[in-house]
Formats: sequence, C-alpha cells, structure tokens
Amino acid sequence: MQATVLYGARDIRFEDRPEPAIVEPTDAIISLPATCICGSDLWPYRGIQTFPAPAPMGHEYCGIVEEVGRGVRSLKRGQFVIGSFFASDNTCQHCRRGYQTSCQHATPVGGAQAPRLRVPLADGTLVATRENPDAGHIPSMLALSDVMGTGWFAADAANVQPGATVVVVGDGAVGLLGVLSAKQMGAERIIAMSRHETRQKLAREFGATDIVTERGDEGVERIMQLTNGVGADSVLECVGTQESMMQAIEATRPGGSVGYVGVPHGVSLDGQQLFFSHVHLHGGPAPVRRYLPKLIELVFNGTINPGKVFDLVLPLDQVAEGYRAMDERRAIKTLLRP
Amino acid sequence: MQATVLYGARDIRFEDRPEPAIVEPTDAIISLPATCICGSDLWPYRGIQTFPAPAPMGHEYCGIVEEVGRGVRSLKRGQFVIGSFFASDNTCQHCRRGYQTSCQHATPVGGAQAPRLRVPLADGTLVATRENPDAGHIPSMLALSDVMGTGWFAADAANVQPGATVVVVGDGAVGLLGVLSAKQMGAERIIAMSRHETRQKLAREFGATDIVTERGDEGVERIMQLTNGVGADSVLECVGTQESMMQAIEATRPGGSVGYVGVPHGVSLDGQQLFFSHVHLHGGPAPVRRYLPKLIELVFNGTINPGKVFDLVLPLDQVAEGYRAMDERRAIKTLLRP
Repeated sequence: MQATVLYGARDIRFEDRPEPAIVEPTDAIISLPATCICGSDLWPYRGIQTFPAPAPMGHEYCGIVEEVGRGVRSLKRGQFVIGSFFASDNTCQHCRRGYQTSCQHATPVGGAQAPRLRVPLADGTLVATRENPDAGHIPSMLALSDVMGTGWFAADAANVQPGATVVVVGDGAVGLLGVLSAKQMGAERIIAMSRHETRQKLAREFGATDIVTERGDEGVERIMQLTNGVGADSVLECVGTQESMMQAIEATRPGGSVGYVGVPHGVSLDGQQLFFSHVHLHGGPAPVRRYLPKLIELVFNGTINPGKVFDLVLPLDQVAEGYRAMDERRAIKTLLRP
Repeated sequence: MQATVLYGARDIRFEDRPEPAIVEPTDAIISLPATCICGSDLWPYRGIQTFPAPAPMGHEYCGIVEEVGRGVRSLKRGQFVIGSFFASDNTCQHCRRGYQTSCQHATPVGGAQAPRLRVPLADGTLVATRENPDAGHIPSMLALSDVMGTGWFAADAANVQPGATVVVVGDGAVGLLGVLSAKQMGAERIIAMSRHETRQKLAREFGATDIVTERGDEGVERIMQLTNGVGADSVLECVGTQESMMQAIEATRPGGSVGYVGVPHGVSLDGQQLFFSHVHLHGGPAPVRRYLPKLIELVFNGTINPGKVFDLVLPLDQVAEGYRAMDERRAIKTLLRP
C-alpha cells in the first residue's frame, strides 16, 4: 500500500509501505474509509519536535475490521470500530479508573494516514459501533478518535458545570471541540480566544457566546473585564505553549479549574505563582477511550457533529498539501480519503 | 504590651509593642489565652525568606473578643472566636465559593505571638464558638486557626475519598494533621513519610497505617512497592520544596490528586512531566475559614484532638526558645502562654 511518511521538517512523502499484518495475537487490522491530520502532527512537521525519521504518520482512525489475531475476543470482521491514539488493554488499574492513555501496557498507534492500519490490544483499544455509520457520519466518527475526545477531556478536566463561565484558549480543532463539549456540559457562557474569522464562526456555531481576540496579559485582562474581575470557573488550555498555559491559569478564578490538553512544549510553571493562583490543574494525554461509547452515541443521535472541524477534504495521496494547508492555517483540519 | 518581633535570621526578640487598637470600624481586638509558632515562621527565621524587619510575628490565634469597631455586626465582647491567618470579608465572589484566602479584600493577620491582637474584617474573619471552650480544648481550638485547617485543606484538595490510599509528604504539624484529616475522610490506607520517631508515633496515633522513611526517588519507589506499582489515590504535599513536590507528584497514580499546602520555595514544575503524570493538582494558602465551623464542632464533640501536635509549652516571654526548639526539630510545634 501507499502511506504517509515524514522524513524531516516539512518533508512529507506518500510512498510504498508494507501492508500491515497481525504481529501479536491481540492485534486487529482495520481498513480506513477516511483519515486525517492532527494539530500535534505539526510539531514534528515544523521541526519543533524531534522524531526518529522516517516516521509513518497519523494516529486518528476509524474503520472496518478486516482481520483479527487469534487472541481477540470481542471483535469480528466487518464491524465498524473507533480507537484512540494510544492502544490500551482497558483492564489494568489505570484503565479501570478511566486513564487509558496511562495504561500499564499503553502503546502509541501510528501510521494511520494510510488505507489500512494495525491496532494493538484490539479488545481494549477499539470500540465497535452498534451499526455501521453511513458516509455522512464518517467525519464525526473520525473526529472522536482524537480531537473530539481530547476537547471533551479538556472540558471534563476543567470541571465544566451547568451554568459555568468557561474560557477556551486555542482555536484549533481541539479548542473548537472544547467549546462544543463545554456547551454539552451546560456551560452558560463560553468565551473563545481566537483571532481567525473562520474559526470564530465555527466557535460560535459550537456554542461560544463571546470571542476574545487579545492574547497574553491583554487577553487575561479582557477575560477579567468580561467576568467582573472574578475570572472564569473553567478554562480549557488547548495549545501547549508557555504563553497559553499562563493565559489559562491567570484567567481562572481562585478555586476554578484549568483543563490542559495541549502537549506542553517548553512549559515551566512557577510553584509559588501556581500556589497563590488557587486553581485546580488537570490534564495530560486525553483518555479518549473512556469517552468513546458516550460520544459515539451523541454522534449517532445527532446531538453533536464534530466532523464540522474538517474544512478541507483531499485524496490521501495529496497528504503533503493537507499538511501545508494546516501549517499555513488555511485549514483547521484536513480529512483525507484513501 | 510585650510581643514577638523578628529582626533578622534567628534574631527573635520579645519586646515592648503598642497595644492593639481599633483602626477600622470593621476591626476587633481579641485577647489570646494561648498562641503558637508555625512551621512557616521558620522560613523567615532561617533567613530563607526575606521580610521587612523588624516584623511582628505570629498568625495563629483564638481568644476572647475584648472590643469591636462600630461596623462589626455579628460579634460581641466576651465571645470566644477563632480566625485564620488571612482576614477575609466572607462575602466577595471568592469567599462565597470557599476561597477566603483569595478574598478580594484579603489582609494578612500578623503579630499574634502576643497577649492581644487586632483582627481586621472581624465579621468575615472570626467564627464564634457556641460556648466558651474549657482550658483543655484551647490547644485544639488554636490548632484550627492554621495547621488543622491547612491539613484538612490538603486532604480536601487531594480529593481523599472513603477507602482511598493516601500518602502524606511532610511530618510537620500540618502533615500530621493531614494524616488525621485523611483518616476523618475515610481513607483506608495512610502512608506517612517521616524519619523522626516522635513524629512517626503521632502519625500512627492520628491514623497512619504505614511509615516510609525513604525520600526523593527512593521514597517514590517505596510508595510504588507498597501500592503494587499503581501509586496513591491522593497525596498531601506539606513541605514546599522541589524535592517534596516531585515526590508527591511521582507517588500519585494517573488520575489521582496532589493537594499541596507547603508554601513553595524555589519550586518549578516541568509542563511535560506534569502532563504525562496525569495527576490533579490543587493547593494554595488554605481557606481555613471555610472549614472552621465544621472543625470547631469536631473538637467540641471530641472527634478530633489536633492540639496533640503541641509537644512543647512555654511562657510567651520564652518565645525565642520556642523558635530554637522547632528550628532544631526538637519540637513539632510550640504553644506559648501569655
């Protein structure tokens, strides 16, 4: 098959790769009706994050089970399944408490920007849908694999309650779906921090009540004005830089919560500043697996439509253009069709 | 009157000071049947924390109302009251959410190592007991003013649940009362980290089921052994150094909680390490005011006896010896009698 490989900064190639095959008896092979590019793929693409090149790319996936190893118990050929970017056994002490991305046997899933994918620990990792979704639902199902689950975790980690005032830092796909998640959890006021018109529009569609275009100290000041000097109950940090993290902490009221899901790059927190901020801090790699059954249902019954974050659709062999469009912020998120 | 003043590192003097007087109409003057020295007083005493010298010392207090300003509504002469180290109006947005130490009008209370004290924002700050406690209850009532309330907040911030496995980092008065708090909240297993025999004994008396004497990486390794490689559900950080903070974070299971109440000195947290730890982090200056009504009741009905942390009692004029004894770890906590 042909699949996506990153050779170095901005050097994406679509080239021959071995067909995925069962390696462990707990593996499954799935065929992918669609795949996509993640905001976090841009860290190595931009050369900000080092990686062992050449690297097969892609970690978001849903699709049809083609083959299962002899150890797989709960899945069979032809089922439609969704998994997360970390394979997990879903039985260890951490999984049972809902932290599958900290599974004691966690394995990253990679190489999903391809027509087919090997998924380890298939029984634990994959969630089968009650029926095969129609084509119109595929983008939303694909979004559940990472960005929707991550936005949901951000809101959950930020302890969004009915009636709350929420701030979302970051207007990428995760931030936008954080807005949608906060809305679902009953937030009354959702302030999206964004300076891009198309993203602001989608944020409003997902439930944002206010838009703040300022950043850093000015952004914090604006949030304080909007909240009568109190700060927000819950802040979703969906970027991962020092500036965005401090913006999130400082925009939160004492006793409020920051849910952070942007993978921190060069972030350092001063203990005393954090102490006197009185915020709750929780985050990490989103345990998407925990939320999949609920989110799948919300997509099926039409409550949420997270697939709207895909504003560029390309054939898989044009994956390099998909990266460029996201890198240049011409696209929020690129969907690729094998 | 004569009271306690810090002039420089290890230079404590007991000397003439002006009698406290009503300054604002919301003030109260209280007379103190007992006062004490806090572990946090040792930071400036040891010269680790700078301060504007000479500094009147002491921020833990309970006693009898002697005089109130004309704006004070809820208190009258002769009542027994307890307050916290931060005066708070108890009506602002932060106070109403239980974060009185982040009160929009918060004022530190100082100069309590004295026979009498001025307390600002008396209506908001002071909680009157339903009757005047007898002499035997005074040490426990005094402990509520800071160390007991702070230990309770540590356990609350660490989200201690019935049946939980809890670790307490720090064997000072706050750590020991953190053990007691975790026990009250229903923790099943409480692991106290201590290498001092008298403190270990008190920790066991307060509810500790295990003692770990190792520190740093070895301490974390020992906790992992004791928890079958999982980590603790809740960890109370009651020290405030880089080592103790990392020990707390690394001893916590993914999804578990660190409650930190040791004022951080030179602590810096790496964003990526915190992210992948998957812990909840909450702490800050303990909003003792929130817990006072409940804790007063627990002392009156004999459920808790936090006054046991006082293992040295001195006349107030020997306050300098009280500091020395705590500095040299000969005493856990010194009670002073004016």
